[in-house]
Amino acid sequence: MSLAGLRVMGIDPGLTRCGLSVVQAGRGREVLPVAVGVVRTPAGAELAERLLRLSTAVNEWMDDYRPDVVAVERVFERGNVSTVMHTAHASGVLVLAAAQRGIPVHMYTPSEVKKAISGNGRADKKQMTSMITRILGLSAPPKPADAADALALAVCHCWRAPLLARTTALLNPGGTS
Amino acid sequence: MSLAGLRVMGIDPGLTRCGLSVVQAGRGREVLPVAVGVVRTPAGAELAERLLRLSTAVNEWMDDYRPDVVAVERVFERGNVSTVMHTAHASGVLVLAAAQRGIPVHMYTPSEVKKAISGNGRADKKQMTSMITRILGLSAPPKPADAADALALAVCHCWRAPLLARTTALLNPGGTS
Repeated sequence: MSLAGLRVMGIDPGLTRCGLSVVQAGRGREVLPVAVGVVRTPAGAELAERLLRLSTAVNEWMDDYRPDVVAVERVFERGNVSTVMHTAHASGVLVLAAAQRGIPVHMYTPSEVKKAISGNGRADKKQMTSMITRILGLSAPPKPADAADALALAVCHCWRAPLLARTTALLNPGGTS
Repeated sequence: MSLAGLRVMGIDPGLTRCGLSVVQAGRGREVLPVAVGVVRTPAGAELAERLLRLSTAVNEWMDDYRPDVVAVERVFERGNVSTVMHTAHASGVLVLAAAQRGIPVHMYTPSEVKKAISGNGRADKKQMTSMITRILGLSAPPKPADAADALALAVCHCWRAPLLARTTALLNPGGTS
């Protein structure tokens, strides 16, 4: 089952900085980089305005790159309370943008992404950035960290999608998916 | 400074049950009920689909009732982790709906609402429901609790809005607001 050509958008949700990436699955484990960037919203602005700016930005990315599927990092209740809540609000808005276009959303925990990319669920940022740079054949490490995380999410989905597709096929032997 | 006629939508965010209400400010502390209800999304559905359903529902309410302002309960990192995250995702989508229409959003903590309605920041559900029923002149207590909470949020904003408006006027003596 080949997924060559599949366009995956990776999203590392955040309100102050949100990492966005688009990659395209190649043959086998090959993944080609398409775009990467970070959307920022001003910390001093009201929540409503920040969510609106984020929503507008991710919708522009979806218009520009037409992803087939979106991979989003699952938010955990860890670290600074206010940051976690902001990230969860942002995540809701980002998942909604995909849902409104009928784009399937897959969520991965940070350790699932680390394991898929580096083989180690506890890999540090440096290891992850180095792996992503090599996998995608980039000339320089992606910066900032949120951009690298967004690429890692997208690559993680490319590599897990064939397995997910086989599982779905096994569960629905007569189905079309 | 009279706010008579101001239409306030109260939102008690949630993914399984989201309380929605609309009230209209009258003279002095009078508040008139306009609508109250609860939007539910199926617990078995995927997050993306649930957020889409919630967004569609709140947008329909905003189309139908054209609120001037929205009062939303601020989500706290308390209780069941997964529920809190779901509520925070939902909250992001609800605040976005208001922002996309240019409707101002005010956030209140549960204790601010309780204090405004009952004079006691730790009032229990029974006290709150009884106060809301009396304030709005309802023939029966609103049910379920999420509906009563949504009404309480809207009434809270009606009563606090004049103070907010005076503060704004004091801070911007030459302004138009």
